[in-house]
Amino acid sequence: MNKAIKTAISPTREEDYPEWYQQVIKGADLAENSPVRGCMVIKPWGYALWENMQRVLDKMFKQTGHQNAYFPLFIPMSFLEQEAKHVEGFAKECAVVTHHRLEHDPETGGLRPAGPLEEPLIVRPTSETIIGAMYAKWVQSYRDLPILINQWANVVRWEMRTRLFLRTAEFLWQEGHTVHATKEEAIEETYKMLDVYADFAENFMAVPVIKGEKTPGERFPGADITLSIEAMMQDRKALQAGTSHFLGQNFSRAQEIKFQDQNSEVAYAWTTSWGVSTRLIGALIMTHADDDGMIMPPRIAPSHAVILPIYRDEAQRADVLDYCRNLKAELEELAFAGRALEVDIDDRDLRGGEKKWYHVKRGVPLRIEVGPKDIAKDAVFLARRDTGEQQSVGRAELLSSIVGRLSEMQDNLFQRAKKMREEHTVEIDSEAEFRKYFTPNNADNPEIHAGFAMCYFASEEAVQPLLDELKVTIRCIPLEENDQPGTCFLTGQPAEKRAVFAKAY
Amino acid sequence: MNKAIKTAISPTREEDYPEWYQQVIKGADLAENSPVRGCMVIKPWGYALWENMQRVLDKMFKQTGHQNAYFPLFIPMSFLEQEAKHVEGFAKECAVVTHHRLEHDPETGGLRPAGPLEEPLIVRPTSETIIGAMYAKWVQSYRDLPILINQWANVVRWEMRTRLFLRTAEFLWQEGHTVHATKEEAIEETYKMLDVYADFAENFMAVPVIKGEKTPGERFPGADITLSIEAMMQDRKALQAGTSHFLGQNFSRAQEIKFQDQNSEVAYAWTTSWGVSTRLIGALIMTHADDDGMIMPPRIAPSHAVILPIYRDEAQRADVLDYCRNLKAELEELAFAGRALEVDIDDRDLRGGEKKWYHVKRGVPLRIEVGPKDIAKDAVFLARRDTGEQQSVGRAELLSSIVGRLSEMQDNLFQRAKKMREEHTVEIDSEAEFRKYFTPNNADNPEIHAGFAMCYFASEEAVQPLLDELKVTIRCIPLEENDQPGTCFLTGQPAEKRAVFAKAY
Repeated sequence: MNKAIKTAISPTREEDYPEWYQQVIKGADLAENSPVRGCMVIKPWGYALWENMQRVLDKMFKQTGHQNAYFPLFIPMSFLEQEAKHVEGFAKECAVVTHHRLEHDPETGGLRPAGPLEEPLIVRPTSETIIGAMYAKWVQSYRDLPILINQWANVVRWEMRTRLFLRTAEFLWQEGHTVHATKEEAIEETYKMLDVYADFAENFMAVPVIKGEKTPGERFPGADITLSIEAMMQDRKALQAGTSHFLGQNFSRAQEIKFQDQNSEVAYAWTTSWGVSTRLIGALIMTHADDDGMIMPPRIAPSHAVILPIYRDEAQRADVLDYCRNLKAELEELAFAGRALEVDIDDRDLRGGEKKWYHVKRGVPLRIEVGPKDIAKDAVFLARRDTGEQQSVGRAELLSSIVGRLSEMQDNLFQRAKKMREEHTVEIDSEAEFRKYFTPNNADNPEIHAGFAMCYFASEEAVQPLLDELKVTIRCIPLEENDQPGTCFLTGQPAEKRAVFAKAY
Repeated sequence: MNKAIKTAISPTREEDYPEWYQQVIKGADLAENSPVRGCMVIKPWGYALWENMQRVLDKMFKQTGHQNAYFPLFIPMSFLEQEAKHVEGFAKECAVVTHHRLEHDPETGGLRPAGPLEEPLIVRPTSETIIGAMYAKWVQSYRDLPILINQWANVVRWEMRTRLFLRTAEFLWQEGHTVHATKEEAIEETYKMLDVYADFAENFMAVPVIKGEKTPGERFPGADITLSIEAMMQDRKALQAGTSHFLGQNFSRAQEIKFQDQNSEVAYAWTTSWGVSTRLIGALIMTHADDDGMIMPPRIAPSHAVILPIYRDEAQRADVLDYCRNLKAELEELAFAGRALEVDIDDRDLRGGEKKWYHVKRGVPLRIEVGPKDIAKDAVFLARRDTGEQQSVGRAELLSSIVGRLSEMQDNLFQRAKKMREEHTVEIDSEAEFRKYFTPNNADNPEIHAGFAMCYFASEEAVQPLLDELKVTIRCIPLEENDQPGTCFLTGQPAEKRAVFAKAY
């Protein structure tokens, strides 16, 4: 390979995008595969990121009136039978518990399952049915409504082909489940939580998203309305980053969630559910990481800055470390985005280059190098991860400017991602253009796609065969700036709205 | 029943202790049983308590140098076969996943398990084996040590008889798993984390505990040293509230956790594990709750105070609510134990008595009632949950004294529990006394026991038959104030230490 510039991650995005993704995760030490097929281990640096994401989201949920609770990991099979009856497209790939004991197996000398269960239990793939069963008990009167509950939990969906963060058998998520007395209130909740997700994605993850409604064919089974936020990855594929469902009375009828209203009449309640998962970390990586590895948006970064002490001998070491520790303490008295700065000192016995690249690959926003020469002029060597910009900065200036720098970086990451999306989004109004747009013309790099096509369409059924042929999906019908009617790109019939068409994760 | 004083919880502790426990949980709305056998639903008020406990513990873990990570829910059966071979007393009651799909069953019209797994998976009962398998990959050199990782997770142990919080099939916990280069460092870690648990129990939960070492028969399978904190419940039974294990090289040998030391020699590492669970909530209830329901220690209470607006008509309502909202805002600017005060206003349309008892049963530390007469003199009616004390307090005085009051309540709860334990702890030096102490003499109330007996004992084997007969266990050998040798209460032989003997949960 003839590379002019060496990168910390090999291959680069241009060379092999899917492999680049795996190597970014490895280089940043975010997660790895476990001996259990399809299940990942989230390593400390990745889990600290998830904790920051959780903390921000959890606060937003509480500010919008929700409380957390915890429901069982297991769902009796009969609950899913009920659901399978009334829901088409019911997901059947799941982990099934059939025994409750291990016993010695005299044949193999090992262990074998024993104690068969009367009724198999399913490890929750999502909790609508088990939570609904509890809500049916809790809801009697309109006074018991609304119920606004969220759960942070692990869920399992058996997957054949898995990929760290994007698709794993077990993943971590939150699932909100709410019950309302009126349809209007439930719909309002559905939109409100989509707004919370969009706010979080854009203002904390620096990931621009399109808020939209799913077409009937792409809805959550059992939902009357499914809303989603859709983001563009650097290979220009779409990634669904969060969903919010208005479930109408479908689940409340199946599960008998009824209440006596103010006129003493019994009515079925209206329910919603909404969730985001560790998949968001996949979205974060594919939005911001570059050929040198991860880039953490400062507002959710596990740490804001790392200080690398540089010295030649033990005599220098004491002074340099002393300076670094004082600097760390001063920096940690500052706050950015409602959180005290977190600063690490890396004094491991590693070569300077190795140590530098270690932190570049992990995506720490700011790298601060301190050696005797810097100390002599009361300055530090400062490097920004997003732009690569490096400069000597006086200590006082660092302290007075660091919060502003982090804020600028946060904004820069968002603007850069938004620009990328805008550059790869087109309006398409004919089948020929559509075919051309979604037909790979780049044999060297079949994994980088064209982008988003905004198209009028008359009906999902009419366009589906073409979409199947090109492996394109309708991501969503954008909620905003989408009220001029037009004509279907395929049939020429009148159409109300444009939708986002794209290849997708 | 002839009761002079009515209590909010029926039966009382004296009348039927086990049923009182269930009724306290129900009255406080902390948790309830789910349709899944042995699995509980933790309701918002109970989960908010758990979140506060998590927040404090998590901070303590991080301050002692630990990081969080996340490992798979499932453990391949072969991992446990390995463990079963080298560990006696291996727990076999667990949830076994044998299939990965549900399919339509033409016979019943329902669903049935399909897609048998090549190797069954166990839902983690604890994660030593799966985490150890990862550590074996991560640890190569002494430079990789120590590994100091904690996981917050759900675990499952199949239980025949379950009881909310105390013993459930699924429960929430944290499990720390650390790896060290030397035996001394691993032992130091084991004691350090026991101290963290004791600090948390006493200073946040207001639950006095005895730190001690388990006898060999009571150790965690595979541990060389098991330490625990033991608390006395109001029925004078012991409850093990946290454990910390020094695992020696037992797990590292079974799992090949090896490293090259500074002399380039390969050595097995030394590991520890330590955990506390939602069982702590059971301990909290049985330490502090009374015949009127739950009492939340202020430092971990889901909210510190509730304001009840009192008014007769709409005209009064606006003024009273206005006053309450201002008061809430002012109170929430104050902080107690490092956390802003959390204050709720309960303006639900309920009778005054009903509303008062609702909050008494939930254990909110302070109840503040505000009516037009109070407002007229710029005062509130204040009730303390722990002592029941009620008084009119000027608004200014409330604001200046509330943090002190909460602190006093926290201390009062701890002192009360400690006094209870001291009153029911005796030193016993003869078999006759021991038999008498642990033989119920109260036919009316067989569920209330005598307490803790501090006894010298020569060997676990020698006393075991008597303990089995009386259903008594050795809880631990206290680490503190236990260095005067004596003679065994049963055999009269010389003995080094006293141990805590008690009936236990």
